[in-house]
Amino acid sequence: MEPVLFYGVPHGCSFGSIVALEWLGQPYRLHRIDMLEDSPGFEKISPLGQTPAMITADGRPLTESLAILHNIAARGLDKGLGFAQGSKEFDELNWMLAYLHTTLHSTLGYGWNAYKLADDDHAGKAFLRRLAREKSADAFAYLQGVLEGRDWLVGDTKTVADAYFIGIARWGEDLKLFDIAKEFPGIHRHMARLEADPAVIFAHAIEDERQAVSAGGFLGHIGIDEMAPRIAA
Amino acid sequence: MEPVLFYGVPHGCSFGSIVALEWLGQPYRLHRIDMLEDSPGFEKISPLGQTPAMITADGRPLTESLAILHNIAARGLDKGLGFAQGSKEFDELNWMLAYLHTTLHSTLGYGWNAYKLADDDHAGKAFLRRLAREKSADAFAYLQGVLEGRDWLVGDTKTVADAYFIGIARWGEDLKLFDIAKEFPGIHRHMARLEADPAVIFAHAIEDERQAVSAGGFLGHIGIDEMAPRIAA
Repeated sequence: MEPVLFYGVPHGCSFGSIVALEWLGQPYRLHRIDMLEDSPGFEKISPLGQTPAMITADGRPLTESLAILHNIAARGLDKGLGFAQGSKEFDELNWMLAYLHTTLHSTLGYGWNAYKLADDDHAGKAFLRRLAREKSADAFAYLQGVLEGRDWLVGDTKTVADAYFIGIARWGEDLKLFDIAKEFPGIHRHMARLEADPAVIFAHAIEDERQAVSAGGFLGHIGIDEMAPRIAA
Repeated sequence: MEPVLFYGVPHGCSFGSIVALEWLGQPYRLHRIDMLEDSPGFEKISPLGQTPAMITADGRPLTESLAILHNIAARGLDKGLGFAQGSKEFDELNWMLAYLHTTLHSTLGYGWNAYKLADDDHAGKAFLRRLAREKSADAFAYLQGVLEGRDWLVGDTKTVADAYFIGIARWGEDLKLFDIAKEFPGIHRHMARLEADPAVIFAHAIEDERQAVSAGGFLGHIGIDEMAPRIAA
Protein backbone atom coordinates (compact mmCIF):
# COMPACT_ATOMS: atom_id res chain seq x y z
CA MET A 1 0.00 0.00 0.00
CA GLU A 2 1.05 3.64 -0.22
CA PRO A 3 2.40 5.21 2.99
CA VAL A 4 0.12 7.42 5.09
CA LEU A 5 1.42 10.56 6.81
CA PHE A 6 -0.38 11.91 9.89
CA TYR A 7 0.14 15.68 9.98
CA GLY A 8 -0.74 17.99 12.84
CA VAL A 9 -2.59 21.29 12.76
CA PRO A 10 -2.22 24.08 13.54
CA HIS A 11 1.29 24.50 12.12
CA GLY A 12 2.90 21.20 13.12
CA CYS A 13 6.49 20.39 12.28
CA SER A 14 4.90 17.60 10.21
CA PHE A 15 4.62 20.29 7.52
CA GLY A 16 8.17 19.38 6.46
CA SER A 17 7.25 15.73 5.98
CA ILE A 18 4.37 16.72 3.65
CA VAL A 19 6.79 18.85 1.61
CA ALA A 20 9.35 16.02 1.46
CA LEU A 21 6.68 13.52 0.34
CA GLU A 22 5.63 15.90 -2.44
CA TRP A 23 9.24 16.23 -3.58
CA LEU A 24 9.62 12.44 -3.51
CA GLY A 25 6.81 12.12 -6.06
CA GLN A 26 5.71 8.63 -4.98
CA PRO A 27 2.10 7.78 -4.02
CA TYR A 28 1.04 8.65 -0.47
CA ARG A 29 -2.02 9.55 1.57
CA LEU A 30 -2.58 11.98 4.43
CA HIS A 31 -4.49 11.90 7.70
CA ARG A 32 -5.23 15.12 9.55
CA ILE A 33 -4.72 15.40 13.34
CA ASP A 34 -6.07 18.44 15.16
CA MET A 35 -3.45 18.81 17.90
CA LEU A 36 -5.91 20.73 20.09
CA GLU A 37 -8.51 17.93 20.08
CA ASP A 38 -8.58 14.25 21.03
CA SER A 39 -7.91 11.86 18.16
CA PRO A 40 -9.41 8.45 19.01
CA GLY A 41 -7.36 5.60 17.55
CA PHE A 42 -4.26 7.72 16.91
CA GLU A 43 -2.53 6.36 20.03
CA LYS A 44 -2.15 3.01 18.22
CA ILE A 45 0.04 4.72 15.60
CA SER A 46 1.71 7.34 17.77
CA PRO A 47 1.64 6.28 21.44
CA LEU A 48 2.69 9.76 22.59
CA GLY A 49 0.17 11.44 20.30
CA GLN A 50 2.95 13.17 18.36
CA THR A 51 2.81 14.26 14.76
CA PRO A 52 4.24 13.61 12.27
CA ALA A 53 3.57 9.89 12.29
CA MET A 54 3.67 7.58 9.31
CA ILE A 55 2.36 4.19 8.33
CA THR A 56 5.06 2.86 6.03
CA ALA A 57 4.35 1.02 2.79
CA ASP A 58 4.64 -2.30 4.68
CA GLY A 59 2.27 -1.18 7.44
CA ARG A 60 4.68 -0.18 10.21
CA PRO A 61 4.02 2.88 12.38
CA LEU A 62 6.93 5.33 12.43
CA THR A 63 7.15 8.55 14.44
CA GLU A 64 9.67 11.40 14.96
CA SER A 65 10.32 13.89 12.15
CA LEU A 66 13.95 12.88 11.82
CA ALA A 67 13.13 9.19 11.38
CA ILE A 68 10.36 9.93 8.86
CA LEU A 69 12.58 12.32 6.91
CA HIS A 70 15.35 9.68 6.84
CA ASN A 71 12.81 7.18 5.51
CA ILE A 72 11.75 9.57 2.74
CA ALA A 73 15.35 10.54 1.96
CA ALA A 74 16.35 6.87 1.62
CA ARG A 75 13.62 6.47 -1.01
CA GLY A 76 14.63 9.70 -2.73
CA LEU A 77 18.39 9.30 -3.16
CA ASP A 78 17.96 9.48 -6.97
CA LYS A 79 16.25 12.85 -6.57
CA GLY A 80 18.91 14.22 -4.24
CA LEU A 81 16.51 14.40 -1.28
CA GLY A 82 19.13 12.54 0.75
CA PHE A 83 22.54 10.94 0.32
CA ALA A 84 24.05 7.45 0.39
CA GLN A 85 24.88 6.09 3.84
CA GLY A 86 28.59 6.47 4.58
CA SER A 87 29.13 9.44 2.23
CA LYS A 88 30.40 12.87 3.22
CA GLU A 89 27.04 14.37 2.23
CA PHE A 90 25.22 11.81 4.42
CA ASP A 91 27.18 13.22 7.38
CA GLU A 92 26.35 16.78 6.35
CA LEU A 93 22.63 16.10 6.03
CA ASN A 94 22.56 14.26 9.36
CA TRP A 95 24.33 17.18 10.97
CA MET A 96 21.86 19.69 9.55
CA LEU A 97 18.79 17.65 10.54
CA ALA A 98 20.15 17.19 14.06
CA TYR A 99 21.09 20.86 14.29
CA LEU A 100 17.66 22.04 13.14
CA HIS A 101 16.05 19.73 15.64
CA THR A 102 18.36 20.49 18.57
CA THR A 103 18.38 24.21 18.17
CA LEU A 104 15.54 25.65 16.13
CA HIS A 105 12.86 23.10 17.01
CA SER A 106 13.80 22.78 20.67
CA THR A 107 14.36 26.46 21.39
CA LEU A 108 11.23 27.66 19.60
CA GLY A 109 9.56 24.80 21.46
CA TYR A 110 10.10 26.71 24.72
CA GLY A 111 7.73 29.28 23.22
CA TRP A 112 5.04 26.66 22.54
CA ASN A 113 5.49 25.26 26.04
CA ALA A 114 4.52 28.67 27.41
CA TYR A 115 0.98 28.04 26.11
CA LYS A 116 0.77 24.82 28.09
CA LEU A 117 1.24 26.54 31.46
CA ALA A 118 -1.71 27.56 33.63
CA ASP A 119 -3.36 30.76 32.36
CA ASP A 120 -2.29 32.75 35.43
CA ASP A 121 1.34 31.55 35.41
CA HIS A 122 2.52 34.84 33.92
CA ALA A 123 6.06 34.52 35.29
CA GLY A 124 6.47 31.04 33.82
CA LYS A 125 5.15 32.14 30.43
CA ALA A 126 7.41 35.21 30.31
CA PHE A 127 10.39 33.12 31.34
CA LEU A 128 9.83 30.54 28.60
CA ARG A 129 9.25 33.19 25.93
CA ARG A 130 12.48 34.95 26.90
CA LEU A 131 14.37 31.64 26.76
CA ALA A 132 12.79 30.84 23.36
CA ARG A 133 13.74 34.20 21.89
CA GLU A 134 17.31 34.25 23.22
CA LYS A 135 18.18 30.73 22.24
CA SER A 136 16.44 30.60 18.86
CA ALA A 137 18.00 33.96 17.89
CA ASP A 138 21.38 32.22 18.16
CA ALA A 139 20.12 29.37 15.99
CA PHE A 140 18.68 31.69 13.32
CA ALA A 141 21.92 33.70 13.26
CA TYR A 142 24.03 30.58 12.88
CA LEU A 143 21.83 29.14 10.11
CA GLN A 144 21.93 32.48 8.33
CA GLY A 145 25.72 32.13 8.23
CA VAL A 146 25.44 28.57 6.89
CA LEU A 147 23.16 29.80 4.09
CA GLU A 148 25.54 32.57 2.98
CA GLY A 149 26.41 32.03 -0.67
CA ARG A 150 24.32 28.84 -0.82
CA ASP A 151 20.93 28.04 -2.35
CA TRP A 152 20.11 25.07 -0.11
CA LEU A 153 21.00 23.97 3.40
CA VAL A 154 23.00 20.89 2.32
CA GLY A 155 24.66 20.21 -1.04
CA ASP A 156 23.48 21.65 -4.35
CA THR A 157 19.81 20.69 -4.36
CA LYS A 158 16.87 20.82 -2.03
CA THR A 159 16.90 18.02 0.54
CA VAL A 160 14.68 16.86 3.38
CA ALA A 161 16.58 19.39 5.54
CA ASP A 162 15.05 22.30 3.59
CA ALA A 163 11.63 20.67 3.94
CA TYR A 164 12.07 20.37 7.71
CA PHE A 165 13.42 23.92 7.95
CA ILE A 166 10.41 25.58 6.32
CA GLY A 167 8.00 23.79 8.67
CA ILE A 168 9.66 25.09 11.84
CA ALA A 169 11.30 28.41 10.88
CA ARG A 170 7.80 29.91 10.55
CA TRP A 171 7.30 29.42 14.30
CA GLY A 172 9.58 32.41 14.89
CA GLU A 173 6.75 34.60 13.62
CA ASP A 174 3.85 32.37 14.73
CA LEU A 175 5.06 32.94 18.28
CA LYS A 176 5.60 36.66 17.58
CA LEU A 177 9.21 36.36 18.73
CA PHE A 178 10.83 37.93 15.64
CA ASP A 179 10.32 40.03 12.56
CA ILE A 180 12.37 37.58 10.51
CA ALA A 181 12.58 39.72 7.34
CA LYS A 182 14.11 42.53 9.36
CA GLU A 183 16.18 40.64 11.91
CA PHE A 184 17.40 37.72 9.76
CA PRO A 185 17.24 38.72 6.09
CA GLY A 186 19.22 35.63 5.00
CA ILE A 187 16.72 33.35 6.75
CA HIS A 188 13.87 35.32 5.22
CA ARG A 189 15.41 34.88 1.75
CA HIS A 190 15.59 31.09 2.18
CA MET A 191 12.04 30.98 3.52
CA ALA A 192 10.81 33.05 0.55
CA ARG A 193 12.57 30.71 -1.92
CA LEU A 194 10.85 27.74 -0.29
CA GLU A 195 7.46 29.47 0.00
CA ALA A 196 7.47 29.74 -3.82
CA ASP A 197 7.94 25.97 -4.20
CA PRO A 198 4.80 24.08 -5.37
CA ALA A 199 5.25 21.48 -2.62
CA VAL A 200 5.24 24.17 0.06
CA ILE A 201 2.23 25.90 -1.50
CA PHE A 202 0.51 22.50 -1.52
CA ALA A 203 1.35 21.83 2.15
CA HIS A 204 -0.08 25.20 3.21
CA ALA A 205 -3.27 24.50 1.27
CA ILE A 206 -3.56 21.12 3.01
CA GLU A 207 -3.07 22.63 6.47
CA ASP A 208 -5.56 25.43 5.72
CA GLU A 209 -8.11 23.07 4.11
CA ARG A 210 -8.02 24.97 0.82
CA GLN A 211 -7.99 23.40 -2.66
CA ALA A 212 -4.58 21.68 -2.81
CA VAL A 213 -2.86 20.82 -6.08
CA SER A 214 -0.29 18.05 -5.73
CA ALA A 215 2.72 18.05 -8.01
CA GLY A 216 3.65 14.76 -6.32
CA GLY A 217 1.85 11.52 -5.57
CA PHE A 218 -0.90 12.65 -3.17
CA LEU A 219 -3.85 10.25 -3.42
CA GLY A 220 -6.12 11.98 -0.91
CA HIS A 221 -6.93 11.81 2.78
CA ILE A 222 -7.75 8.50 4.46
CA GLY A 223 -9.63 7.73 7.69
CA ILE A 224 -8.25 5.78 10.64
CA ASP A 225 -10.85 3.01 10.14
CA GLU A 226 -10.00 2.62 6.46
CA MET A 227 -6.34 2.08 7.19
CA ALA A 228 -6.80 -0.35 10.11
CA PRO A 229 -6.54 -3.50 7.96
CA ARG A 230 -3.32 -2.19 6.41
CA ILE A 231 -1.42 -1.83 9.67
CA ALA A 232 1.01 -4.64 10.49
CA ALA A 233 0.11 -6.49 13.67
CA MET B 1 44.29 9.51 9.47
CA GLU B 2 42.22 8.05 12.29
CA PRO B 3 39.17 10.09 13.39
CA VAL B 4 39.40 12.24 16.51
CA LEU B 5 36.48 12.56 18.93
CA PHE B 6 36.19 15.64 21.17
CA TYR B 7 34.39 14.61 24.34
CA GLY B 8 33.08 16.93 27.04
CA VAL B 9 33.49 16.69 30.79
CA PRO B 10 31.86 16.58 33.21
CA HIS B 11 29.39 13.95 31.98
CA GLY B 12 28.81 15.11 28.40
CA CYS B 13 26.45 13.27 26.08
CA SER B 14 29.65 12.65 24.08
CA PHE B 15 30.07 9.66 26.42
CA GLY B 16 27.89 7.68 24.01
CA SER B 17 30.15 8.48 21.07
CA ILE B 18 33.18 7.14 22.99
CA VAL B 19 31.28 3.93 23.72
CA ALA B 20 30.22 3.58 20.08
CA LEU B 21 33.79 4.12 18.85
CA GLU B 22 35.01 1.41 21.22
CA TRP B 23 32.37 -1.00 19.90
CA LEU B 24 33.36 -0.12 16.32
CA GLY B 25 36.90 -1.34 17.03
CA GLN B 26 38.59 0.89 14.42
CA PRO B 27 41.50 3.24 15.27
CA TYR B 28 40.56 6.61 16.79
CA ARG B 29 41.93 9.30 19.06
CA LEU B 30 40.32 11.48 21.71
CA HIS B 31 40.56 15.12 22.71
CA ARG B 32 39.24 16.25 26.10
CA ILE B 33 37.11 19.42 26.42
CA ASP B 34 36.38 20.79 29.88
CA MET B 35 32.92 22.24 29.32
CA LEU B 36 33.35 24.61 32.28
CA GLU B 37 36.51 26.22 30.84
CA ASP B 38 37.47 28.01 27.64
CA SER B 39 38.97 25.78 24.96
CA PRO B 40 41.05 27.91 22.59
CA GLY B 41 40.99 26.58 19.04
CA PHE B 42 37.94 24.37 19.58
CA GLU B 43 35.64 26.90 17.87
CA LYS B 44 37.28 25.95 14.54
CA ILE B 45 35.97 22.41 14.94
CA SER B 46 32.72 23.13 16.78
CA PRO B 47 31.58 26.72 16.15
CA LEU B 48 29.01 26.52 18.92
CA GLY B 49 31.47 24.94 21.33
CA GLN B 50 29.38 21.79 21.57
CA THR B 51 30.62 18.32 22.32
CA PRO B 52 30.74 15.73 20.92
CA ALA B 53 32.60 16.90 17.87
CA MET B 54 34.61 14.76 15.49
CA ILE B 55 37.32 15.16 12.92
CA THR B 56 36.50 12.46 10.38
CA ALA B 57 39.13 10.24 8.75
CA ASP B 58 39.25 12.67 5.79
CA GLY B 59 39.66 15.73 8.02
CA ARG B 60 36.12 17.12 8.14
CA PRO B 61 34.68 18.55 11.35
CA LEU B 62 31.35 16.96 12.32
CA THR B 63 29.18 17.90 15.29
CA GLU B 64 25.85 16.78 16.84
CA SER B 65 25.62 13.40 18.58
CA LEU B 66 23.09 12.06 16.11
CA ALA B 67 25.27 12.87 13.10
CA ILE B 68 28.38 11.40 14.75
CA LEU B 69 26.51 8.25 15.80
CA HIS B 70 25.16 7.85 12.23
CA ASN B 71 28.73 8.18 10.95
CA ILE B 72 29.94 5.46 13.36
CA ALA B 73 26.93 3.26 12.62
CA ALA B 74 27.55 3.51 8.85
CA ARG B 75 31.09 2.20 9.45
CA GLY B 76 29.83 -0.51 11.79
CA LEU B 77 27.01 -2.14 9.79
CA ASP B 78 28.93 -5.46 9.83
CA LYS B 79 28.99 -5.34 13.64
CA GLY B 80 25.31 -4.51 13.92
CA LEU B 81 25.98 -1.02 15.35
CA GLY B 82 23.61 0.35 12.72
CA PHE B 83 21.52 -0.88 9.79
CA ALA B 84 21.47 -0.49 6.02
CA GLN B 85 19.79 2.65 4.71
CA GLY B 86 16.25 1.91 3.53
CA SER B 87 15.73 -1.12 5.79
CA LYS B 88 13.03 -1.52 8.43
CA GLU B 89 15.73 -1.59 11.12
CA PHE B 90 17.23 1.66 9.77
CA ASP B 91 13.84 3.28 10.44
CA GLU B 92 13.70 1.77 13.92
CA LEU B 93 17.18 2.97 14.86
CA ASN B 94 16.47 6.45 13.50
CA TRP B 95 13.28 6.55 15.51
CA MET B 96 15.05 5.53 18.71
CA LEU B 97 17.91 8.01 18.25
CA ALA B 98 15.45 10.82 17.53
CA TYR B 99 13.27 9.79 20.46
CA LEU B 100 16.19 9.68 22.91
CA HIS B 101 17.29 13.07 21.70
CA THR B 102 13.85 14.70 21.63
CA THR B 103 12.69 13.42 24.95
CA LEU B 104 15.41 12.24 27.30
CA HIS B 105 18.18 14.60 26.19
CA SER B 106 15.95 17.65 25.80
CA THR B 107 13.87 17.20 28.92
CA LEU B 108 16.81 16.40 31.21
CA GLY B 109 18.43 19.38 29.49
CA TYR B 110 15.91 21.65 31.24
CA GLY B 111 17.59 20.52 34.44
CA TRP B 112 21.07 21.50 33.18
CA ASN B 113 19.71 24.84 32.00
CA ALA B 114 18.70 25.57 35.60
CA TYR B 115 22.43 25.81 36.44
CA LYS B 116 22.91 28.47 33.78
CA LEU B 117 20.47 30.92 35.40
CA ALA B 118 21.64 33.66 37.77
CA ASP B 119 22.41 32.31 41.25
CA ASP B 120 19.51 34.20 42.82
CA ASP B 121 16.92 33.19 40.20
CA HIS B 122 15.40 30.62 42.53
CA ALA B 123 11.98 30.68 40.85
CA GLY B 124 13.52 30.07 37.42
CA LYS B 125 15.64 27.21 38.71
CA ALA B 126 12.73 25.55 40.50
CA PHE B 127 10.56 25.93 37.43
CA LEU B 128 13.12 24.30 35.12
CA ARG B 129 13.78 21.44 37.55
CA ARG B 130 10.07 20.73 37.83
CA LEU B 131 9.74 20.76 34.02
CA ALA B 132 12.78 18.45 33.72
CA ARG B 133 11.41 15.96 36.22
CA GLU B 134 7.86 15.88 34.87
CA LYS B 135 8.82 15.55 31.24
CA SER B 136 11.74 13.17 31.60
CA ALA B 137 9.67 10.91 33.88
CA ASP B 138 7.34 10.38 30.91
CA ALA B 139 10.34 9.58 28.70
CA PHE B 140 11.83 7.10 31.19
CA ALA B 141 8.46 5.41 31.63
CA TYR B 142 7.96 5.08 27.89
CA LEU B 143 11.49 3.73 27.30
CA GLN B 144 10.97 1.25 30.13
CA GLY B 145 7.99 -0.08 28.19
CA VAL B 146 10.05 -0.31 24.99
CA LEU B 147 12.70 -2.34 26.85
CA GLU B 148 10.20 -4.85 28.26
CA GLY B 149 11.21 -8.33 27.10
CA ARG B 150 14.15 -6.95 25.10
CA ASP B 151 17.91 -6.92 25.69
CA TRP B 152 18.69 -3.89 23.55
CA LEU B 153 16.85 -0.76 22.44
CA VAL B 154 16.74 -1.68 18.74
CA GLY B 155 17.03 -5.12 17.15
CA ASP B 156 18.90 -8.06 18.68
CA THR B 157 22.30 -6.53 19.37
CA LYS B 158 23.72 -3.42 20.93
CA THR B 159 23.60 -0.43 18.60
CA VAL B 160 24.65 3.21 18.72
CA ALA B 161 21.26 3.85 20.37
CA ASP B 162 22.32 1.92 23.49
CA ALA B 163 25.61 3.87 23.50
CA TYR B 164 23.74 7.17 23.34
CA PHE B 165 21.25 6.05 26.00
CA ILE B 166 23.86 5.23 28.64
CA GLY B 167 25.51 8.64 28.22
CA ILE B 168 22.33 10.60 28.94
CA ALA B 169 20.19 8.33 31.16
CA ARG B 170 22.72 8.91 33.96
CA TRP B 171 21.71 12.58 34.04
CA GLY B 172 18.49 11.58 35.81
CA GLU B 173 20.62 10.88 38.89
CA ASP B 174 23.34 13.47 38.21
CA LEU B 175 20.61 16.09 38.49
CA LYS B 176 19.15 14.34 41.57
CA LEU B 177 15.76 14.19 39.84
CA PHE B 178 15.17 10.44 40.33
CA ASP B 179 16.17 7.33 42.19
CA ILE B 180 16.20 5.35 38.95
CA ALA B 181 16.62 1.90 40.53
CA LYS B 182 13.49 2.47 42.59
CA GLU B 183 11.34 4.51 40.20
CA PHE B 184 12.28 2.86 36.88
CA PRO B 185 13.63 -0.66 37.55
CA GLY B 186 13.53 -1.55 33.83
CA ILE B 187 15.68 1.47 32.99
CA HIS B 188 18.00 0.60 35.87
CA ARG B 189 18.36 -2.96 34.52
CA HIS B 190 19.36 -1.71 31.08
CA MET B 191 21.79 0.79 32.57
CA ALA B 192 23.35 -1.96 34.73
CA ARG B 193 23.76 -4.23 31.69
CA LEU B 194 25.54 -1.42 29.86
CA GLU B 195 27.64 -0.38 32.87
CA ALA B 196 29.15 -3.89 32.82
CA ASP B 197 30.27 -3.48 29.18
CA PRO B 198 34.05 -2.96 28.72
CA ALA B 199 33.42 0.00 26.41
CA VAL B 200 31.33 1.77 29.04
CA ILE B 201 33.89 0.99 31.76
CA PHE B 202 36.54 2.43 29.42
CA ALA B 203 34.53 5.60 28.75
CA HIS B 204 34.06 6.23 32.49
CA ALA B 205 37.81 5.80 33.05
CA ILE B 206 38.51 8.30 30.26
CA GLU B 207 36.08 10.86 31.70
CA ASP B 208 37.47 10.38 35.21
CA GLU B 209 41.12 10.42 34.05
CA ARG B 210 41.77 6.96 35.44
CA GLN B 211 43.77 4.19 33.73
CA ALA B 212 41.60 3.28 30.73
CA VAL B 213 41.87 -0.09 28.98
CA SER B 214 40.58 0.01 25.40
CA ALA B 215 39.05 -3.12 23.95
CA GLY B 216 38.71 -1.12 20.71
CA GLY B 217 41.03 1.00 18.62
CA PHE B 218 41.90 3.86 21.00
CA LEU B 219 45.33 5.28 20.06
CA GLY B 220 45.55 7.92 22.78
CA HIS B 221 44.70 11.57 23.27
CA ILE B 222 45.85 14.20 20.76
CA GLY B 223 46.33 17.96 21.13
CA ILE B 224 44.59 20.62 19.03
CA ASP B 225 47.95 21.78 17.61
CA GLU B 226 48.95 18.27 16.57
CA MET B 227 45.78 17.76 14.61
CA ALA B 228 45.78 21.14 12.82
CA PRO B 229 47.60 19.88 9.71
CA ARG B 230 45.11 17.01 9.40
CA ILE B 231 42.01 19.19 9.17
CA ALA B 232 40.64 19.74 5.67
CA ALA B 233 40.70 23.41 4.63
